[in-house]
Amino acid sequence: MPRTSDKGNRMPPSPIRKLVPYAEAAKKRGIKIYHLNIGQPDIETPQVMFDAVRNYPKRVVEYSHSAGNESYRKKLTEYYRRYNINLDYTEIIVTTGGSEAIEIAMMTCLNAGDEMIIAEPFYANYNGFSAQADVVIKPIRSTIETGFALPPVSEFKKMITPRTRAIMICNPSNPTGYLYTRAELESLRELVLKHDLWLFSDEVYREFCYDGKEYVSAMHLEGIEQNVVLLDSISKRYSACGARIGALISKNKEVMSAALKFAQARLSPPAFGQVAAEAAVDAPEEYFSKVKTEYVARRDFIVNALNSIEGVFCPKPSGAFYCIARLPVDDADIFCQWLLEKFSYDSQTVMLAPASGFYSTKGAGKDEVRIAYVLNINDLRKAMECLALGLLQYPGRTLKREKEKQAAE
Amino acid sequence: MPRTSDKGNRMPPSPIRKLVPYAEAAKKRGIKIYHLNIGQPDIETPQVMFDAVRNYPKRVVEYSHSAGNESYRKKLTEYYRRYNINLDYTEIIVTTGGSEAIEIAMMTCLNAGDEMIIAEPFYANYNGFSAQADVVIKPIRSTIETGFALPPVSEFKKMITPRTRAIMICNPSNPTGYLYTRAELESLRELVLKHDLWLFSDEVYREFCYDGKEYVSAMHLEGIEQNVVLLDSISKRYSACGARIGALISKNKEVMSAALKFAQARLSPPAFGQVAAEAAVDAPEEYFSKVKTEYVARRDFIVNALNSIEGVFCPKPSGAFYCIARLPVDDADIFCQWLLEKFSYDSQTVMLAPASGFYSTKGAGKDEVRIAYVLNINDLRKAMECLALGLLQYPGRTLKREKEKQAAE
Repeated sequence: MPRTSDKGNRMPPSPIRKLVPYAEAAKKRGIKIYHLNIGQPDIETPQVMFDAVRNYPKRVVEYSHSAGNESYRKKLTEYYRRYNINLDYTEIIVTTGGSEAIEIAMMTCLNAGDEMIIAEPFYANYNGFSAQADVVIKPIRSTIETGFALPPVSEFKKMITPRTRAIMICNPSNPTGYLYTRAELESLRELVLKHDLWLFSDEVYREFCYDGKEYVSAMHLEGIEQNVVLLDSISKRYSACGARIGALISKNKEVMSAALKFAQARLSPPAFGQVAAEAAVDAPEEYFSKVKTEYVARRDFIVNALNSIEGVFCPKPSGAFYCIARLPVDDADIFCQWLLEKFSYDSQTVMLAPASGFYSTKGAGKDEVRIAYVLNINDLRKAMECLALGLLQYPGRTLKREKEKQAAE
Repeated sequence: MPRTSDKGNRMPPSPIRKLVPYAEAAKKRGIKIYHLNIGQPDIETPQVMFDAVRNYPKRVVEYSHSAGNESYRKKLTEYYRRYNINLDYTEIIVTTGGSEAIEIAMMTCLNAGDEMIIAEPFYANYNGFSAQADVVIKPIRSTIETGFALPPVSEFKKMITPRTRAIMICNPSNPTGYLYTRAELESLRELVLKHDLWLFSDEVYREFCYDGKEYVSAMHLEGIEQNVVLLDSISKRYSACGARIGALISKNKEVMSAALKFAQARLSPPAFGQVAAEAAVDAPEEYFSKVKTEYVARRDFIVNALNSIEGVFCPKPSGAFYCIARLPVDDADIFCQWLLEKFSYDSQTVMLAPASGFYSTKGAGKDEVRIAYVLNINDLRKAMECLALGLLQYPGRTLKREKEKQAAE
């Protein structure tokens, strides 16, 4: 039997999805699971998207242009103008989800062995895409104490080697919910300019900025227009994760020309999704205001609920729909699996994503979990009840042990 | 400005799509183009697929399982049983088109520098996917004189080195339309077994086997079940290229487990396409019989039409909807571009795919084109008129030169 590849072996399983078999087993035992492990919102997809697909304009579901339908790309320039991002449609390649935008950007810009600096914790699948592209991630630790603010630029400077070719950010951040300030982005801008680096900016959560704070795109930064590659997706914007429509955007013509060759190899992005996505650009403004109000309420609820559990700490994020919480457990990977395998309360349990998978540094984030607040407040309340109870019963609970120690002394 | 990657530079542009800008320019000049350059059939997508998408069952377009919806994978096992391919649904990963199945198969099974033997001419994008995966294609020439039959196994044996890890076939073949015989496949089976190679089998055209000839799948070959990776797609089967739904199939559990990690990184295949594809499994049998009758008529027409043009030779293929023709031209790349840039007849022209892009050997297939007979016979007739006239007028015509030479003698 032939052996699978080294890359296949090296490839990390998704930390968000690796617990899926335990969840499936729990469901088969009749347990209801509150899924806070994955950024799959419960928010309804805008009706205009379903209508567009229902009225699919052709009798043959054809390939589109490899860069996406021209009509959609032109429509997208309208969308970006609302955010003060001025594009020509040729500066957009429609991709199969944001995932493919990341894949193509790495293959287009980086050689095997090139280094990319990312503040950790970061979106776990960057690890997978880096493994695919043989890119070396150089993590810089951001900490829960600062709410996962950008580490000081002096830390980035320390990491720069002759192989450093890129910085990657996610803003607002998955998994931390942190929204970068203009000052933070300006400090990155200087670094990018000085060392002539690529700046990959994953901004798929731009609709989700809270508390009146300003959204600053990497495309707003002056003087690094040739360095910036914007990675985008409609998955979260319109709660249409399954449509698999994203975009790779750059003003750098060499990037676009090389990226198009990768896009041509896979022929075209999905046809139904593109038609839906084009219609979504005209989704009514109240769709977003309603969604945003809902997420703010959820965030406020969940951050309060978490911080009121003994031993739990969760900073309050200003963007996206995630937060990272520190739990009083020995190992969040074991705890999250235990919640699915061994725990239930009233035939219910909660599924969380162990944060370890969002760190590149081994052992980091061992007592942290990522929580996606993608359920309604009633469900979030029940999920938090499960979590609180689970933390009391979990054998690897660290708080209890301390109390037991005290009792023993 | 940072430099794009070596891989980005090395990546071949699609030979099928590289002439697109010339076609777009011709259209802007008011020229009607008969597209025989791309395997985009004009056949209508089955109504059940549109109905399924119209009745999308959820209010949220969610991610599916990374391996695809369980219901669809189970339904697919029914489909394959009709072809005597017996699968458990866990032996299927739904991919974003056949393209992604190929990408994931290569990354899963092959290391950088590993060699893969393919009979050329072969589907051009194998070059792109190999470049992405740093796999080295070792081509073996099949010839137009034999109708592009499998080269003798002795030729394969000569190519085997310590780095040889795989053989790739496409059956029935894009771009040649050749349908491999049982004897040919048995000879490959022995080779695969002897050298413990992977056998990647791209069988996306299995519905299109003509003249009562037998379709033999790589999955039918005994004793190499652990070596075979089947690469599939619904694009051609249901004329649904834009749905972007394919499949990676293997009985090898290590392959499936590593492949799933790549699938997890990109989250899930398209939701609308999956729902449509699941419904398509129940497309009425007459859909296929009608389509097949149509393709046989087209093939007969086009092969006759081609062979009746002076200096043109086209073997008659038994599968898929392609043929390769040898033309009396100095360079088919230049000729195909000339047809779009300089030629028109009654404000019409024809777009063909230069065969050079389907060969890995530099200079091979220089006077050949691939023709996709994906238009109705009326359009094919007009396209052949354009081709015949174009060949008379083309400055690089080789026949004319010979006559001129004779005249001069």
